[in-house]
Amino acid sequence: MLKYRDGLAAMPTYDVVERPWKIKINANECNLNLPPLVEERVLSRLSRVAFNRYPNEEYDLLREQIAAAYNLTKENILLGSGSSEIIEKLFYSFGGRDGTIVYPRPSFSMYGIYAKAAESRGIAVDLAEDYAFDADKFVNAVNDNKATLAVICNPNNPTGTGIPLAAIERVAQNIDCALLLDEAYMEFYGESASELLTKYPHLIVARTFSKAYGLAAARVGYMLAAKDIVSTVEKSYMPYHLNVLSVATADIVYQMRYEYGPRIDQLIAETERLSAELKKLPGVTVYPSVTNFVLVRYAKAVELNEELAAQGIGVRSFNKTPRLENCLRISMGTREENDIWLKAVQDFVAREA
Amino acid sequence: MLKYRDGLAAMPTYDVVERPWKIKINANECNLNLPPLVEERVLSRLSRVAFNRYPNEEYDLLREQIAAAYNLTKENILLGSGSSEIIEKLFYSFGGRDGTIVYPRPSFSMYGIYAKAAESRGIAVDLAEDYAFDADKFVNAVNDNKATLAVICNPNNPTGTGIPLAAIERVAQNIDCALLLDEAYMEFYGESASELLTKYPHLIVARTFSKAYGLAAARVGYMLAAKDIVSTVEKSYMPYHLNVLSVATADIVYQMRYEYGPRIDQLIAETERLSAELKKLPGVTVYPSVTNFVLVRYAKAVELNEELAAQGIGVRSFNKTPRLENCLRISMGTREENDIWLKAVQDFVAREA
Repeated sequence: MLKYRDGLAAMPTYDVVERPWKIKINANECNLNLPPLVEERVLSRLSRVAFNRYPNEEYDLLREQIAAAYNLTKENILLGSGSSEIIEKLFYSFGGRDGTIVYPRPSFSMYGIYAKAAESRGIAVDLAEDYAFDADKFVNAVNDNKATLAVICNPNNPTGTGIPLAAIERVAQNIDCALLLDEAYMEFYGESASELLTKYPHLIVARTFSKAYGLAAARVGYMLAAKDIVSTVEKSYMPYHLNVLSVATADIVYQMRYEYGPRIDQLIAETERLSAELKKLPGVTVYPSVTNFVLVRYAKAVELNEELAAQGIGVRSFNKTPRLENCLRISMGTREENDIWLKAVQDFVAREA
Repeated sequence: MLKYRDGLAAMPTYDVVERPWKIKINANECNLNLPPLVEERVLSRLSRVAFNRYPNEEYDLLREQIAAAYNLTKENILLGSGSSEIIEKLFYSFGGRDGTIVYPRPSFSMYGIYAKAAESRGIAVDLAEDYAFDADKFVNAVNDNKATLAVICNPNNPTGTGIPLAAIERVAQNIDCALLLDEAYMEFYGESASELLTKYPHLIVARTFSKAYGLAAARVGYMLAAKDIVSTVEKSYMPYHLNVLSVATADIVYQMRYEYGPRIDQLIAETERLSAELKKLPGVTVYPSVTNFVLVRYAKAVELNEELAAQGIGVRSFNKTPRLENCLRISMGTREENDIWLKAVQDFVAREA
């Protein structure tokens, strides 16, 4: 009998089985590939990669570039395989047997799982009925539980809710442990805590190239934090943890990030347009979103999800997930895709009304 | 004060600072980039990547391809970010507070570090004076210490020593815990334990694309094991842990692996040629190697290393590492590169004699 680490066998398995959707709006991806100008430069850069060499200066070039954009130095930047790896390693670093990690609920479903993987206590603090974030309630939970890490997803996934910077600062002021802001969707909102970094040395901001910059396939994210946090958390990474192809791609995309402005504006406009249209439907609750997706609650969400799937439209159904019963999360696709799924939703609701 | 996981702050930092070597033979890399035919297909494949989508069927396509080559099924294959990540996750999975991990010394220096990161007891079993592997001694160490994971690097890095398959089987027969064969350099040797997998369900084989296939930049490795080991260890990975660019590149390289035959033969021939030349030098001990590198011991290794560095030649010096005092590890470069560093070594030894 093989002897695995305690708890490992009981961990959930991720079998993300995807169908070949006609319209894929279930993972908050960007539904457009690289902009043509960016694509040209990325492929040119990839053709010059020394595939045979271990990563070397590529990490530092990207770190320096990101640092400059935030008026920081490269010692404030840590790269990861998506912000997922940043989060996983932060949970590990501030976790362990004596660790307690506090995060809101409902939020990114992996927080609870990363807390378990870090062998730490995970404590979920319920958001209000409308998913609003209560800074004082959260602060109390962090302090009462002597948390070693507090995590806030802003804007929050899967609710789409934006938390004002003032509320984030209120938390930062009133807790002593490390405070991670998971800002995967921040490009759609804009109230980043990154400007508070110099004021609060226990603050950590995680960002990703997967959403607004449409690089989910490359798996690149980064964190911004005080130098001592970066250098300590870095110890939890194995050497050469990031590959050169992804780093070089992200480097070009970041250099050309202004190319993404119109795209991001378009996604914000679509989120507003589709939210307004969905609000007109009887029985459909639409939660305010400052992201590229929208969460809706509808008594027949399960049936609606099945109908959409039958039409080749993949959305994210939360079904019986606590606090997300009968909720569907729909990512914004292209304008044409959005018109198609909206029509399908409208027809279903009209039939059922 | 931030509260980190116990032991994290004391972990070593990896500052792999590289100089712009004229001849880089310090990391056992392949000193040639992709073969032209492979490069063409890799770049064509990369131009068709949906950068905006999370990884999906790419993992399974590569797993199926590898499985077919070993007469296994895809459920026997787990991919990782280099065999490094495979090893790290196996140490995590069989580690924890109650875990004990046994490995030879000297061997891959990360074993001790991954054991610490897994919060497990790491036990190093000394190889013989000439770095020969003693199966019975190793078996006793594994059983006496009630190990949860036993690790053997074959061929062994950094000594270059090949361990006969019979000795590996002797270990497999006499221990009950998981047995990991780290076969990063196996393409140069050929006596893989993969053929023993169906006979010994506690056997795990780790392989990499970084060495013989010259893909160090892409960070892709894989492990072969029984389905229940794969499915349990997989739980220690975060979703989407591997990026599509690297997986797609490895997929093409694996399809075209027969293109690498002449290269591998050439590296083996160069290892033999350079070993024979080095043996002629007074005071230089050359250890038999079945890899793409050679380990030498020489009383003035530190000075020789400095002289080579001054000439722009980067080799790996072990300096005062226990059991590797005064040892240099030299990777095989191209034939031209090898002639240059050999001449430099010959000149130095002649001067000092």
